[in-house]
Amino acid sequence: MKAALVQLLNTDDKAYNLAHARELIGEAARGGADLVCLPEMFCCEYRNRSFVAAQEPRGGPACAMLSEAARENGVYLIGGTIPEAEDGRLYNTAFVFDRGGAELARCRKIHLFDIDVKGGQYFKESDTFTPGSEVCVFDTEFGRLGLCVCFDIRFPELTRLMALSGAWAMFCPASFNMTTGPAHWELSFRGRAVESQLYTLGCAPARDVNGSYVSYANSIVVHPWGNVIARAGAEETILYADICPEEAASVREQLPLLSARRTDVYTLDYA
Amino acid sequence: MKAALVQLLNTDDKAYNLAHARELIGEAARGGADLVCLPEMFCCEYRNRSFVAAQEPRGGPACAMLSEAARENGVYLIGGTIPEAEDGRLYNTAFVFDRGGAELARCRKIHLFDIDVKGGQYFKESDTFTPGSEVCVFDTEFGRLGLCVCFDIRFPELTRLMALSGAWAMFCPASFNMTTGPAHWELSFRGRAVESQLYTLGCAPARDVNGSYVSYANSIVVHPWGNVIARAGAEETILYADICPEEAASVREQLPLLSARRTDVYTLDYA
Repeated sequence: MKAALVQLLNTDDKAYNLAHARELIGEAARGGADLVCLPEMFCCEYRNRSFVAAQEPRGGPACAMLSEAARENGVYLIGGTIPEAEDGRLYNTAFVFDRGGAELARCRKIHLFDIDVKGGQYFKESDTFTPGSEVCVFDTEFGRLGLCVCFDIRFPELTRLMALSGAWAMFCPASFNMTTGPAHWELSFRGRAVESQLYTLGCAPARDVNGSYVSYANSIVVHPWGNVIARAGAEETILYADICPEEAASVREQLPLLSARRTDVYTLDYA
Repeated sequence: MKAALVQLLNTDDKAYNLAHARELIGEAARGGADLVCLPEMFCCEYRNRSFVAAQEPRGGPACAMLSEAARENGVYLIGGTIPEAEDGRLYNTAFVFDRGGAELARCRKIHLFDIDVKGGQYFKESDTFTPGSEVCVFDTEFGRLGLCVCFDIRFPELTRLMALSGAWAMFCPASFNMTTGPAHWELSFRGRAVESQLYTLGCAPARDVNGSYVSYANSIVVHPWGNVIARAGAEETILYADICPEEAASVREQLPLLSARRTDVYTLDYA
């Protein structure tokens, strides 16, 4: 399976962002991608007031564009995330579409990004968003894939539940910053990959050093053995990687971690 | 709290190893250590037949030496691990002693090391050992500390349970090899530290390139933010690090991961 992570430069102009994303999805498809992934909040700037301004309900203009782009290019499409409005609440949501443009999954960010690092990044996503409550996996012709959003990657429980349910790769539209990015971005993707023995793929916005929130960028693909097999820099780009379920199966056989879990000592379950 | 990780070169002569460890514990104490940690299987070579040959029951010669060394030096002592015999079974066990030489904890390796990497390391610890079934934490004048053994570090559930029970540092006598060491040693200690927001300290045997099992060595201390604050090379050495519960508390406040866990979505418990 060829995956393409579209590290696009988002602006605060939603219509421009949607048109630009659509172009790049087409470019990724022409580049041979089976599955295209967009970054977290690809349709607006990463700040609370922009989330509010760019909100739309399920089936709104961003969803419509994504569905059409998936269909016209014949690709699976993970629509980064958008601010999804429902019943007066906002969610940080990734909609997934199949090759025919049908909605395949909806993934709402479960762990909201509330941090206050001394001399570093402050952000309080919970001022605006309501967290999701469902662990997201979906099935494709390549088997089962997992999906989470940014801060979710820090919680090994989530990845573990996906792996145990049969996922062999986990996608994560994300936007780490210049504090947590250098410190924890690669570590988080490598850590999750090795401990739960699946590919991890992080798709971030390109870096705008003049933006209100500066994305670390560095979109990344990590093999289940832990080696980084593709990594972007700071600029707008499309990062391609060939990933393969047999590789995950082989790692799980050589280094049996999932099967060596001591479920008689600890239990991890859906609540 | 000043911790000392004794990266000693173990041989297949148990009496020599015990005497040598005792010397180095004294040296670490003279170096100012409050707590001294020895490597996994410090009393024999790391292979199944050596485990059988060096076995002893709780209170045997290695335990007696460790208790005396703790008392005479006035230090907390994590006695690496030894092959502990009980009721016809063998366990890969760390005995912990307080400053007065009293046994404070017994930690039996929970996840046995059974791997078969193509073109790399093969080992089947379960040929010899029975796994333990208890998550180990113990209390000191510096607060609660966690303890696990080598392969256990790969399982985030274990570290998480320790952190949730109040541990601010986790020790891990370990012996990674020249396949898994370069690939996963640092990653595992950094990953556990960042996700569960505690210090992780790995104490390995020094590297003997002519041994039957070649230790990666590289004893390591990682800060709860994920930075490596001390790291040994391949040679016999004592690695010192000042670690502090307030640092872990500060990281947990700035980047609230433990408190942001979604226990309404997933549950992690003792079985």
